[in-house]
Amino acid sequence: MGLFGASTHTLDDLFVHGLKTIYYAERQIAETLPKMIDMATDPTLRAGFEQHLAETRNQRVRLEQVFAQHGVEPDETTCRAIDGIIKAANATAADIDDSHVLDAALAYGAQAVEHYEIAQYGTLIAWARELGREDCAAVLAENLAEEKATDQKLSDLAEARINRAAQRQSA
Amino acid sequence: MGLFGASTHTLDDLFVHGLKTIYYAERQIAETLPKMIDMATDPTLRAGFEQHLAETRNQRVRLEQVFAQHGVEPDETTCRAIDGIIKAANATAADIDDSHVLDAALAYGAQAVEHYEIAQYGTLIAWARELGREDCAAVLAENLAEEKATDQKLSDLAEARINRAAQRQSA
Repeated sequence: MGLFGASTHTLDDLFVHGLKTIYYAERQIAETLPKMIDMATDPTLRAGFEQHLAETRNQRVRLEQVFAQHGVEPDETTCRAIDGIIKAANATAADIDDSHVLDAALAYGAQAVEHYEIAQYGTLIAWARELGREDCAAVLAENLAEEKATDQKLSDLAEARINRAAQRQSA
Repeated sequence: MGLFGASTHTLDDLFVHGLKTIYYAERQIAETLPKMIDMATDPTLRAGFEQHLAETRNQRVRLEQVFAQHGVEPDETTCRAIDGIIKAANATAADIDDSHVLDAALAYGAQAVEHYEIAQYGTLIAWARELGREDCAAVLAENLAEEKATDQKLSDLAEARINRAAQRQSA
């Protein structure tokens, strides 16, 4: 409980809390992706990160639409989950001296981020529906579909090329 | 890069690093689940957490098998990702004063953990295969299947009952 007692009393409060944490998370991701683009060597991986950066900025705009639909001012709440996921990815990347092995680690780091978002959006959609906010659920579902597509693309790319290149380099 | 230079040079190094972080993560999860069991009100949610605690302990044993197959001593590497995910779940739970809303938050927190593990095991399996370690991949796939089943069960339970109870309480 917070210093002055609990501030989350209802499912609606929890939904708004979740919106604020994913709004914060999307900004953190938008700030991290340019560094990942700089570090990546594989051109398809770089292009994938660039596309996802554009999507992430648009996802923030969609979240602003959801805040408006729900009659709440857009606001951020710091989320230690996304902070931790990004810090872990940075720490792993900083300990690698081979560009192909780094690509494999970057692809993994990006998938860890995607899965965090898939969990978050999946839950927010279920909560929105329970609250009778099909309008919010529909917009959140657009973000979820993009996160799932990005995760699948990263899996396909890693298995088709990135991991092979990392292994060849190592052998 | 670490204080004395990079220590991850090959895909094999990255695979072992990943094994050590998920081995650490599974212990953190095993230590957190009893607190979640104590906090949960819905009997099916509690039973689900209890079952997952047993699975998590067994997953640690499977990871020890993978370390052995790969000829490496089992060891843990601190992972800020799982630490952050658990801290975020604790912070959210601590700010809730209604038991049904707390159940909804606990189910979400557990799904965030599951998705972190799904991303981690999915990548470790792909790396194991690239390294020619089908034996390790097969054991890791058992853990992945359990995490996916737990995530699906949590989604079904939340949508069937937990979210409804949280919303009724709020209305």
